[in-house]
Amino acid sequence: MSQNEKRMRDLASQEALATAAEREMGTALDRYEAQQPQCRFGKQGICCRICSMGPCRVVSTDGETRLGVCGANADTIVARNLLRMVAGGAAAHSDHGRDVAHTFLLMARGEAKDYGIKDEVKLRAVAGEYGVEVDGKSTQEIALELAERAMAEFGQQEGELKLAARAPEARQKVWRGLGVMPRGVDREIVECMHRTHIGVDADYRNILRHGIRTALSDGWGGSMIATDLQDIMLGSPVPIRAKVNLGVLSEDKVNLVVHGHEPILSEMIVEASRDPELLKLAEEKGAKGIQLSGICCTANEILMRQGIPSAGHFLQQELAIATGAVEAMVVDVQCLMPGLSQAVNCFHTELITTSPKGKIPGARHMEFEEENALEVAREIVRAAVEKFPERKKRSKRKYRLDWGKFSPERIEREWKKRKRKK
Amino acid sequence: MSQNEKRMRDLASQEALATAAEREMGTALDRYEAQQPQCRFGKQGICCRICSMGPCRVVSTDGETRLGVCGANADTIVARNLLRMVAGGAAAHSDHGRDVAHTFLLMARGEAKDYGIKDEVKLRAVAGEYGVEVDGKSTQEIALELAERAMAEFGQQEGELKLAARAPEARQKVWRGLGVMPRGVDREIVECMHRTHIGVDADYRNILRHGIRTALSDGWGGSMIATDLQDIMLGSPVPIRAKVNLGVLSEDKVNLVVHGHEPILSEMIVEASRDPELLKLAEEKGAKGIQLSGICCTANEILMRQGIPSAGHFLQQELAIATGAVEAMVVDVQCLMPGLSQAVNCFHTELITTSPKGKIPGARHMEFEEENALEVAREIVRAAVEKFPERKKRSKRKYRLDWGKFSPERIEREWKKRKRKK
Repeated sequence: MSQNEKRMRDLASQEALATAAEREMGTALDRYEAQQPQCRFGKQGICCRICSMGPCRVVSTDGETRLGVCGANADTIVARNLLRMVAGGAAAHSDHGRDVAHTFLLMARGEAKDYGIKDEVKLRAVAGEYGVEVDGKSTQEIALELAERAMAEFGQQEGELKLAARAPEARQKVWRGLGVMPRGVDREIVECMHRTHIGVDADYRNILRHGIRTALSDGWGGSMIATDLQDIMLGSPVPIRAKVNLGVLSEDKVNLVVHGHEPILSEMIVEASRDPELLKLAEEKGAKGIQLSGICCTANEILMRQGIPSAGHFLQQELAIATGAVEAMVVDVQCLMPGLSQAVNCFHTELITTSPKGKIPGARHMEFEEENALEVAREIVRAAVEKFPERKKRSKRKYRLDWGKFSPERIEREWKKRKRKK
Repeated sequence: MSQNEKRMRDLASQEALATAAEREMGTALDRYEAQQPQCRFGKQGICCRICSMGPCRVVSTDGETRLGVCGANADTIVARNLLRMVAGGAAAHSDHGRDVAHTFLLMARGEAKDYGIKDEVKLRAVAGEYGVEVDGKSTQEIALELAERAMAEFGQQEGELKLAARAPEARQKVWRGLGVMPRGVDREIVECMHRTHIGVDADYRNILRHGIRTALSDGWGGSMIATDLQDIMLGSPVPIRAKVNLGVLSEDKVNLVVHGHEPILSEMIVEASRDPELLKLAEEKGAKGIQLSGICCTANEILMRQGIPSAGHFLQQELAIATGAVEAMVVDVQCLMPGLSQAVNCFHTELITTSPKGKIPGARHMEFEEENALEVAREIVRAAVEKFPERKKRSKRKYRLDWGKFSPERIEREWKKRKRKK
């Protein structure tokens, strides 16, 4: 078994890893190996860097436990670190929900004209759950009221999150009994940061209990709001059959890869990639069309709603670029490795950031605006199309894609063969 | 110069450090020394433990820079860590403001009867700034409207914070130009956590710019709300002359030390400590009265409003206990070293936590309720008084306070003498 076979079992990824090595590109796997051995204190969560008396490392030496400068022991430090991880995760997940709610609000106000209501049945059902009176009201009126109520869940200071009422009553009772029923999305995350600050909560049980409240505020708040409003605005998904893995990249079409999290952006890119004017431009540039594909979470969003193939998961984001076939990768937020910036330097690929919250040095920034969504999306697709002629120049010399190896059909055959052997 | 003279220049602290050592109590200074040498990566901020591919340490080896697994370089990692520190600080500061606003709201609703309006002039002025119509309205009505508007600043999702309008116009323009005008208190803190999560913001300039916005949301939001509402509710302070340092602890009175941050609690303790019934109880227990003093931030709150002496700063919290003269230390949130729990074990002192956000293993928890503030405060003072008879039992054998050395008068004389020598 070669080194790359050990690193990733997927055949297409092995191929891409080999090219990456050939180009001295550097991938997350290489960097992971270069980081070995990783810090033992950090891995165990017993290092605290929260206040400036630290960093502190808590260990047992000669049978005696060493405490942090403030007096925190391992229980407190591990709990603090874990709570901050919960805060980071909930903040990210729920901020996605906030952006969706914001776009939904703009749409309902008539300020984001490229979005609309695709699932009116769900609109009325969800609005009803929030206590919005739906009878005799127009779709637009219901949407506006729902948008305002959903948005208010983020800043709510007292009471309970609306959607927590979806949980079975017995479960809600348990949450109330333990004092973990979330009061608002943002408030719980902020309280994580307060509690873990130097000298507030030192009791790991109390710290972890607040972690549960924060996780619930994301799961039954921000994340659930994201799902509901996306379905209403972009359509509720149904099961479909689709192709996945790096082989979905096309040898003779413009490859534009959408990577990140929010369908608010990727749905518009899908629409723009079908624009006759841009398809004509692609033809003029020598391509047989525009092949859109996704990476990571946003891939699933456009796969389940639009049938767009998924080029891969989190660890394949750099490998997609290593195929040498990607004209542009457009990203918004979350799971974007800063290493992408280094990867695109080895090929003709353009890395395009779109969110004011997520910039990457070396990338081209084309800021996405909900009010002007489709136009920005068209500009992004155009940027990809214009890169197509450069692909041949950069990949002819050293590297030629072996599409047979990458194709999903071949991978399927290969796995069937292996299965039969067993 | 002895070791303790090198550690702290303050004479009273030196005395207390000596006792702490005698009792093998362990102080922050001892733990700091035991932590040496502190981790070089942590100190420089070039260690990242945000995602679970890490921990990563970024160093230059053989002239080559090592990157984090995700590809983050030192700039990104340092900026991420700094932004999370800003988030922690802003969350703590502003959560204090939220608690004050919450108490103010309960007071205005008539649900926290132990609080009232002490500065009506400031109430009307601040309400006016929030756009509350004050003419022809009762104090209570104005207070309720102000409370609701102040509370809304925390959860606000769009627009600008109200009190930012206090900054000079030219400055506001700069903030708007840079995109750092804060939209809401909680939202900015949550966005810090999102941006610094694995794979969102990788551009250190963009990360740090959001740090400025978050700091402004605290300074012109949460913290400013705390100051205003405290002044209205508890009285605006005027310059006073007061005594400070460990010598303010009384040899023959019950010593109750208030430590933490929020005057919502400490003001009530001040009132309870003047209760004739509790003073009588103190006398019955053999004490000549009840001596209240403060540590850290809450000390300043009751010093400037009530003239209560301050027993010391952050690093003296354990030293106050090491005098052996403290019957109880009551804490709420922030700057509470978990080491206090170990310190009180060496003496008769009771450590009392009061906030649901800040528990310490080994401490007695007496939860503070705004609706029932004075009654809880009385119970806390009573707990301190009942500890008084134990002081002699625990401190006679090994340790006797040398009050001459601790007295502020002596320290003043000593410093004057040193100054003359120079």
